[in-house]
Amino acid sequence: MPDRRRRLHGVDRAPRAAFGALVLAVAALWLPNSVARGEDDPLPSWNDGPARAAIVRFVAETTRPGTPSFIPPAARIAVFDNDGTLWAEQPVYVQFAFALDRVKTLAPGHPEWREKQPFKAVLEGDLKTALAGGDAAIVELVMTTQTGMTTDEFAKTVSDWIATARHPRFNRPYTECVYQPMLELLSYLRANGYKTFIVSGGGVEFMRVWTERVYGIPPEQVVGSTVVTRFEMRDRGPVLLREPKIDFIDNAAGKPVAINEFIGRRPVFAFGNSDGDQQMLEWTAAGTGPRFMGLVHHTDAIREWAYDRTSDVGRLDKALDEAVAKGWIVVSMKDDWKTIFPPKGVDSVRHTTPALPHSLAH
Amino acid sequence: MPDRRRRLHGVDRAPRAAFGALVLAVAALWLPNSVARGEDDPLPSWNDGPARAAIVRFVAETTRPGTPSFIPPAARIAVFDNDGTLWAEQPVYVQFAFALDRVKTLAPGHPEWREKQPFKAVLEGDLKTALAGGDAAIVELVMTTQTGMTTDEFAKTVSDWIATARHPRFNRPYTECVYQPMLELLSYLRANGYKTFIVSGGGVEFMRVWTERVYGIPPEQVVGSTVVTRFEMRDRGPVLLREPKIDFIDNAAGKPVAINEFIGRRPVFAFGNSDGDQQMLEWTAAGTGPRFMGLVHHTDAIREWAYDRTSDVGRLDKALDEAVAKGWIVVSMKDDWKTIFPPKGVDSVRHTTPALPHSLAH
Repeated sequence: MPDRRRRLHGVDRAPRAAFGALVLAVAALWLPNSVARGEDDPLPSWNDGPARAAIVRFVAETTRPGTPSFIPPAARIAVFDNDGTLWAEQPVYVQFAFALDRVKTLAPGHPEWREKQPFKAVLEGDLKTALAGGDAAIVELVMTTQTGMTTDEFAKTVSDWIATARHPRFNRPYTECVYQPMLELLSYLRANGYKTFIVSGGGVEFMRVWTERVYGIPPEQVVGSTVVTRFEMRDRGPVLLREPKIDFIDNAAGKPVAINEFIGRRPVFAFGNSDGDQQMLEWTAAGTGPRFMGLVHHTDAIREWAYDRTSDVGRLDKALDEAVAKGWIVVSMKDDWKTIFPPKGVDSVRHTTPALPHSLAH
Repeated sequence: MPDRRRRLHGVDRAPRAAFGALVLAVAALWLPNSVARGEDDPLPSWNDGPARAAIVRFVAETTRPGTPSFIPPAARIAVFDNDGTLWAEQPVYVQFAFALDRVKTLAPGHPEWREKQPFKAVLEGDLKTALAGGDAAIVELVMTTQTGMTTDEFAKTVSDWIATARHPRFNRPYTECVYQPMLELLSYLRANGYKTFIVSGGGVEFMRVWTERVYGIPPEQVVGSTVVTRFEMRDRGPVLLREPKIDFIDNAAGKPVAINEFIGRRPVFAFGNSDGDQQMLEWTAAGTGPRFMGLVHHTDAIREWAYDRTSDVGRLDKALDEAVAKGWIVVSMKDDWKTIFPPKGVDSVRHTTPALPHSLAH
């Protein structure tokens, strides 16, 4: 401290308080423009309403030093489900759409698939029959097409596919079928010193290929389901092999387990959209001090989809009851969001704003 | 950008270049003093020599923008083994010393241990007999004493123990038996935009209790071995239960697997000290672009220990051969380190310096 203070005075010989103001003024250069301008709205795609108000209030209260609700920067852990929370999960999970496309791409090398379910049905475009085998059929399709190669080979396949595949309804890249209001929320939290994580039932190696570019969330902050992976030394060097065996399913009661294993701290902010997120929200809620638990409720059949209690994909039933009972924030896509997706042609929000130094995060 | 530039001129109406200099001067306040002072040495406990020179050269070359060896801040992933690399692992791994102490503490509730190995030998202070059962005995001692409780209960037990237990030879807390030169290296890397991770065979929940305070490494950047953990809703709220079953051993070929699973990027900088780190170093070395692979070689029987090819704890044999063959950096504790441990009475280096904004990390 003596050294630091001496240097501080050495720069301008002004009183400490005046210098502090200058530091803050300069620091404002690193703030996202929307926040730095003060009068501007960091959440422009959110309608005025209770959901938006709850978010803004929570962030304001937890970042004001010297108050009981202040959360130190290191503890500002925010977790987000991915499918249905950050991007569209209808008509099928994107990673399953990827598996279906891979079956078609790989079919010439697998003549036996023409007579074997669920592959036969996929090749004939008969999704209903393909899914008749339930979870076992889904697992077989994903494992057959997304394992048995090195991690580098898999990442390349995902990267190539995600760059060209298009959402069947919106006719744009899947990475453009992300929710603009949630992109703003991620940026808003980060600008206030929150560290944002994905905690998804999706495969972690499927997501990490594009989450940094699309959400500004780096690979080391993506938690997901895993397959068993094996280190192997080859003549040309070491590889990691993805084996056709599930290691961990990061869904439902698995989410708090994965949060504990990967992050090692209890989140203070959690957002999901389905019963698969219920335990993550319960785990977040059970900590002490201020907490934020949010659910995206798909209520907009015109602009996206309307589904909840009886949906096969992203069912929201028990978690909705618990949210209502406990006062968690339920976001109505129809009422709370001005826009759903980013402008067409924009692949995603760019995340070039440097992270805010923790000392300035309040 | 237009908004940002306007604001920039609004503050002092000075030319952009002059303002840039001011920004850098203010930014220097956030730098660790040793780096900010410029003429000072960020690695004062390292002797001049090839190891120190290689570290400084690597950091300088990878943080100079516009050169072929420049590494973007997001890719500056540095991984460190813990036992024997960041703190002393002799005469036994600290987590095993913890297990031995727990056996003694819990013995009054387990009269059957008085007749049952390996517990009987532990209670009689006969470590040799206790270890005669090999890995199975070690696993039994650790599992019996470190599972079967909630994660919160376990963290409390670790926290209480680490605050009072003392190293048998150095008679000071284990958290003071950390290597001062490595603390300096961690800080030096972070001051240059590197993100530091632990990748250890130790239990991740054993380490996370104290790694932030001691090493400045937050829980979400600690990778380690895990036990199966289960979510359970109780009357008073949800808990995570540590079950007496190994989930993953983060050692040897497990280290690249865990790096891929938890971090999701290949490190560019890796430090270990034993054959258990060999695959982590190989995995790091196999990437493209600049790489740093380092081994701590325990050569100092006076100030710490001297051991390598035949040691039961921290054996360094094949990895040493590979390091010599491939030009990895081998740090001789005796020759390269001026001091081994921090000053007595100082629990650890304090890590209050905020992280350097990435935009200033070069």
